[in-house]
Amino acid sequence: MTKISVLGAGSWGSVLASMLADNGHEVALYAHRQSIADEINQSHTNSHYMKDWSLNPAVWASPDLPAVLQDCDIVLFAVPTSAVRSVAKMVRQTLDESGRQPYLVSATKGIEPGTKKLVLQIFKDEIYPDGFDKMIVLSGPSHAENTAQKDLTAITLASTSLDNAAKMQRIFSNDYVRFYTSNDPVGVQVGGAVKNVIAIAAGILAGLGYGDNAKAALMTRGLAEITRLGVAFGGQPWTFSGLSGIGDLIVTCTSVNSRNWRCGYQLGQGKPLDEVLANMGQVVEGATTVKAVHEICDKYSLDMPISASIYKVLYEGAEIKDEIKLMMNRQMGPEIRI
Amino acid sequence: MTKISVLGAGSWGSVLASMLADNGHEVALYAHRQSIADEINQSHTNSHYMKDWSLNPAVWASPDLPAVLQDCDIVLFAVPTSAVRSVAKMVRQTLDESGRQPYLVSATKGIEPGTKKLVLQIFKDEIYPDGFDKMIVLSGPSHAENTAQKDLTAITLASTSLDNAAKMQRIFSNDYVRFYTSNDPVGVQVGGAVKNVIAIAAGILAGLGYGDNAKAALMTRGLAEITRLGVAFGGQPWTFSGLSGIGDLIVTCTSVNSRNWRCGYQLGQGKPLDEVLANMGQVVEGATTVKAVHEICDKYSLDMPISASIYKVLYEGAEIKDEIKLMMNRQMGPEIRI
Repeated sequence: MTKISVLGAGSWGSVLASMLADNGHEVALYAHRQSIADEINQSHTNSHYMKDWSLNPAVWASPDLPAVLQDCDIVLFAVPTSAVRSVAKMVRQTLDESGRQPYLVSATKGIEPGTKKLVLQIFKDEIYPDGFDKMIVLSGPSHAENTAQKDLTAITLASTSLDNAAKMQRIFSNDYVRFYTSNDPVGVQVGGAVKNVIAIAAGILAGLGYGDNAKAALMTRGLAEITRLGVAFGGQPWTFSGLSGIGDLIVTCTSVNSRNWRCGYQLGQGKPLDEVLANMGQVVEGATTVKAVHEICDKYSLDMPISASIYKVLYEGAEIKDEIKLMMNRQMGPEIRI
Repeated sequence: MTKISVLGAGSWGSVLASMLADNGHEVALYAHRQSIADEINQSHTNSHYMKDWSLNPAVWASPDLPAVLQDCDIVLFAVPTSAVRSVAKMVRQTLDESGRQPYLVSATKGIEPGTKKLVLQIFKDEIYPDGFDKMIVLSGPSHAENTAQKDLTAITLASTSLDNAAKMQRIFSNDYVRFYTSNDPVGVQVGGAVKNVIAIAAGILAGLGYGDNAKAALMTRGLAEITRLGVAFGGQPWTFSGLSGIGDLIVTCTSVNSRNWRCGYQLGQGKPLDEVLANMGQVVEGATTVKAVHEICDKYSLDMPISASIYKVLYEGAEIKDEIKLMMNRQMGPEIRI
């Protein structure tokens, strides 16, 4: 039996914790609020994040991070990007005291604004300065709500150490979630982060009344610009054709369960960003990630027209219709630029 | 002004003909039935294929192929795959008489069973034996119903001659359809053909009640096997990340306008194939293409587990649930096999 500490009791953290308990592992779940921990321990529900669903009753939750981390073999991060660094600092402190060196798995998808760093880089800064081999990215098309219902799900586990990715594959797999390994954690992280920006764009188009052709065109051209950014970061181009690239983009852009898509949809219907974000009740990662993407494009002179438009619409008061017209009138050219 | 002969008055042929007339070109449309030609010429509608829609009244339709081909600069094929060879033979005969050498554009998506040939290869067999440069493939995420409503649409034009693809780009583009060029007609054709098989599989999963995660996983793994087949045919792997690959797969697997998806959906609900096909009223290309894919996999020892399962379910009486279980229990491994 493996002892796994899951950090973050949002929808995805809760579902992963419950799934790992179903797989027979010992699972402790870190919730930053006492009330959520109490609800999980007493009634095995997490009603703010997941309606009509119960966790495996073996999952124990607590806001006491050192207690959650005790004797752990694996630490699974499922906190928002904005909280990763502060939680990682606390994890480091506890591990220093215990002397343990667990695997670190990241289910968090985003790029840190300001530093423009991916999550594993934050782990390196704060927890394991000597290398990436004990870190694994978990990413793929996996709405928490669907996995909770045991919908068939396929997810990538990526690490600079394929052996360690394969270890996680054996621990995480079961008869309804299938895991694949990858040796490209950078590409997998970029895909998982930037798809949230494209999902906001897809929601905007739907909110404006555009149809299936427009959605597919946007997603395909969105994938092209995600790939451009990922390759600039050192990722492998073919990773973006996989589960953590186009797979995750599909589920995020075509499901009503996607917060980023729903945020965009309301923007497309003409609601202001402040009001939309206030009404969501959960973090909309794409609205933060697009700031980091904007800074990266500036710094590296990358051409990412869709992300640039979303940044302008969200933070510089640009009109959506003008941005669409600009995009349709860009110079005609070849599809693939290598 | 360019004179364009569009062959095939189904939904996509009719919409392309009308769009090209909107662009200011002279368009003649070949309909194999006199009644359809009469309806188009008299009321500018094609009610069997397109509800609540009118063609540009400048489109002239006829079942007289030599008349449609008169003085043409471009011949655009939009007939079912099964009809391409016989129509191509007739085109060759007319061109021999007139001495014209028009560009040949294929909007037909499929692989010929038996010969296992792509459409441009049929053109080479029957019309231009000396080379592919005057042939261009038109493919991308473009439901006729959406393009008819002027939904934003992006499409690839692929040819061994990029110059000729760029010529078509200038003739076909307007303010709601954006065309991109490619020099990989083989990859573009394989993507357009085989996505119909994956769309049947996506429909089956939906008909069985599976959700968004399963759909995204299926599409991503479907793309992996389409790419495998395309590369075996000589296509470029990155083509499959583009509009004619993942783009077309997205629109075909996530839109209720997709005939192939609807066919699969009814199969998933337990209806027999004969009954489903009889009720569709239009050609379900994927049900034919999967036969060619089956033969190709046998011949080249290609591993295409989703297409193999669809073939077994459609033509060998396999149970869908058994096939899903087999697929989820395949040996675990890395995501990308290069």
